[in-house]
Amino acid sequence: MGVITLTTDFGLRDNFVGVMKGVICSLHPQARLIDISHEMPAHDIGTAAFCLATAYEYFPSGTVHLAVVDPGVGSEREILAVGAGDHFFVAPDNGLLSRILEREPGYEAHYIRNSGLCLPGVGRTFHGRDIMAPVAAHLALGFPLDRVGPQTDRVIMLPPLDLRIDDNALFGRIVYVDGFGNLITNIPNDRIPEDMAALAGTSAGPVTITGVARAYADVPAGAYLAVKGSAGFLEIARNMAPAERPPELTVGTAVEIRWDPSP
Amino acid sequence: MGVITLTTDFGLRDNFVGVMKGVICSLHPQARLIDISHEMPAHDIGTAAFCLATAYEYFPSGTVHLAVVDPGVGSEREILAVGAGDHFFVAPDNGLLSRILEREPGYEAHYIRNSGLCLPGVGRTFHGRDIMAPVAAHLALGFPLDRVGPQTDRVIMLPPLDLRIDDNALFGRIVYVDGFGNLITNIPNDRIPEDMAALAGTSAGPVTITGVARAYADVPAGAYLAVKGSAGFLEIARNMAPAERPPELTVGTAVEIRWDPSP
Amino acid sequence: MGVITLTTDFGLRDNFVGVMKGVICSLHPQARLIDISHEMPAHDIGTAAFCLATAYEYFPSGTVHLAVVDPGVGSEREILAVGAGDHFFVAPDNGLLSRILEREPGYEAHYIRNSGLCLPGVGRTFHGRDIMAPVAAHLALGFPLDRVGPQTDRVIMLPPLDLRIDDNALFGRIVYVDGFGNLITNIPNDRIPEDMAALAGTSAGPVTITGVARAYADVPAGAYLAVKGSAGFLEIARNMAPAERPPELTVGTAVEIRWDPSP
Repeated sequence: MGVITLTTDFGLRDNFVGVMKGVICSLHPQARLIDISHEMPAHDIGTAAFCLATAYEYFPSGTVHLAVVDPGVGSEREILAVGAGDHFFVAPDNGLLSRILEREPGYEAHYIRNSGLCLPGVGRTFHGRDIMAPVAAHLALGFPLDRVGPQTDRVIMLPPLDLRIDDNALFGRIVYVDGFGNLITNIPNDRIPEDMAALAGTSAGPVTITGVARAYADVPAGAYLAVKGSAGFLEIARNMAPAERPPELTVGTAVEIRWDPSP
Repeated sequence: MGVITLTTDFGLRDNFVGVMKGVICSLHPQARLIDISHEMPAHDIGTAAFCLATAYEYFPSGTVHLAVVDPGVGSEREILAVGAGDHFFVAPDNGLLSRILEREPGYEAHYIRNSGLCLPGVGRTFHGRDIMAPVAAHLALGFPLDRVGPQTDRVIMLPPLDLRIDDNALFGRIVYVDGFGNLITNIPNDRIPEDMAALAGTSAGPVTITGVARAYADVPAGAYLAVKGSAGFLEIARNMAPAERPPELTVGTAVEIRWDPSP
Repeated sequence: MGVITLTTDFGLRDNFVGVMKGVICSLHPQARLIDISHEMPAHDIGTAAFCLATAYEYFPSGTVHLAVVDPGVGSEREILAVGAGDHFFVAPDNGLLSRILEREPGYEAHYIRNSGLCLPGVGRTFHGRDIMAPVAAHLALGFPLDRVGPQTDRVIMLPPLDLRIDDNALFGRIVYVDGFGNLITNIPNDRIPEDMAALAGTSAGPVTITGVARAYADVPAGAYLAVKGSAGFLEIARNMAPAERPPELTVGTAVEIRWDPSP
């Protein structure tokens, strides 16, 4: 289909994103370019990894996902082209694809070494433009993955997210804060008991929440709630609250859900 | 033509907009996706209603306009699919389409109830993705409006904008402040007398303006002017002024234009 | 190919950019619209000129580049349609195309005077929508440049960038600060001696830098370096540094590179 998504920490003020799109459409005039985000915090690989991992499955199979959060640009770090779960990914080998590859264990990863795919005169400061954009265009055109460079089974991975489960409780953490101030955890929705009446308590750092609500509007404006979130993970939210929140509630804050033992 | 516009309060940092586009292009690979704005103030239905109502007519007939400012997501509020003036609109039933439907009295509104058009496993927190994006894609593909759900004549409308006209004056309000700091009123350009020499005075809150200028550059840098604005309404502006403005000039401020009685 | 790029100071909050795209795709349903930036500082012609001049060459030949930073909208200033180096440009005649036309001396510039190409009822405050967007669409459809209006050899140009070269030194200035805080100069990469060991010193305002590095990661985190930048010019950067920087390092700061005389 020729869909290519873009996820970066470039922001939208400079011409970096536009230039990558110019490179892509020079090589692949029919490519459909869709932005996932260009406002990832600068050099924050973990946040971008989460953002991409909760988005890619909504795109058609065959989509090429180009992700550039690349503090090591120009150093010896490798660049990857990966096939995983009917999608392709092009990204620096710095952990950016961790959350996807954890879900797609059958992935096939290659180092990008085929300089014939790159722009002439590759520089040292903008591999998104010189290497990753043209490789993404070529993959979207059907160029075979195994010809971009040698296969590897040593992709650099971020540490796994810290999630523990025992008989009566789930212990996770906040891993992402969205623009509405909703706090996304690493607790999968499908690990939360269906019988919410059995829930004995939920807490996020110092904030106690009495149960898991079905929707934001189930609680009064300003109240905290836990809700099965749209990204597939439990969210801690405040209904219609401003994006401001207490500093104790942020990425890394411990979240705990307890329930009554089964009779 | 398959044009679909998007207007939300999601911002561009999170992956929400990208995910909605992924859903749309999975269903309708040829759809042309055009952003109107994703920076509407969070939960501000009135501002988004104005923004969409002053944009939609510039798109080709048959365009589907998807608008998601949805503080009641997951509550009992309905979601609408509307045909109005050769365009289609998909939005929560919370007043977001008010300014359009006031202009297009022959509209046809349906509640979206046909779950076969939605993503499987609709959640409670992201109906933009699960319901509105796929319905917009189906409408752009030609799916008949009358099969999305039952027709309604009870669309929720915002209160009408407060505009009064007497023999020698127009009384309106500021309804939108743009990114340049221009203050858009609800006074239609075509109600302002052509003979501007007859204008006796214009004021916006505490600011007095002596006349209606033809262009920003007609007054010195920093001076206030009133001008027939590009959105079809009188604007109060400062030529080349910074976006900062006195706090008395904001959404809701009264604006008055007086002219001399005809001889 | 029908590629049209857009560069403006409109921001992404208001509907201005979306409306221009609506106008374009009403006239040219197959146009491929690519944003370069809409976050140019308001009315800052010099910054936008640099941003566009370092982006356009990455797009396919035949691309139409629409640029609107237009503090004089509605005044007597002209609007240009220009053919230069296999690309087309549509912009107000206020210097916005200076950095491109300096590089493309064989350009052909026309004033836009053919009102048949414009929206009916051209206003005085939004020529991006009423004149420039439709003319860009027509050029992308193949409309002949010489029929938009009379040719001119008096395009308004910004003063040339202040670059001096003597036997042992280059004297330039910072001309752009990107979103990562990198300071882009007007010193072309290809004027910097290949033999970097011969470099005797680099300074940017009060900051002394001992040499030109190959990549950001060549120096410790937080250290300043000079690097041949991706835009074709020397950059002053801090490896992995926050976007904050001393106020002495900004647009206009003098930059100097000295090298040892050849033996």
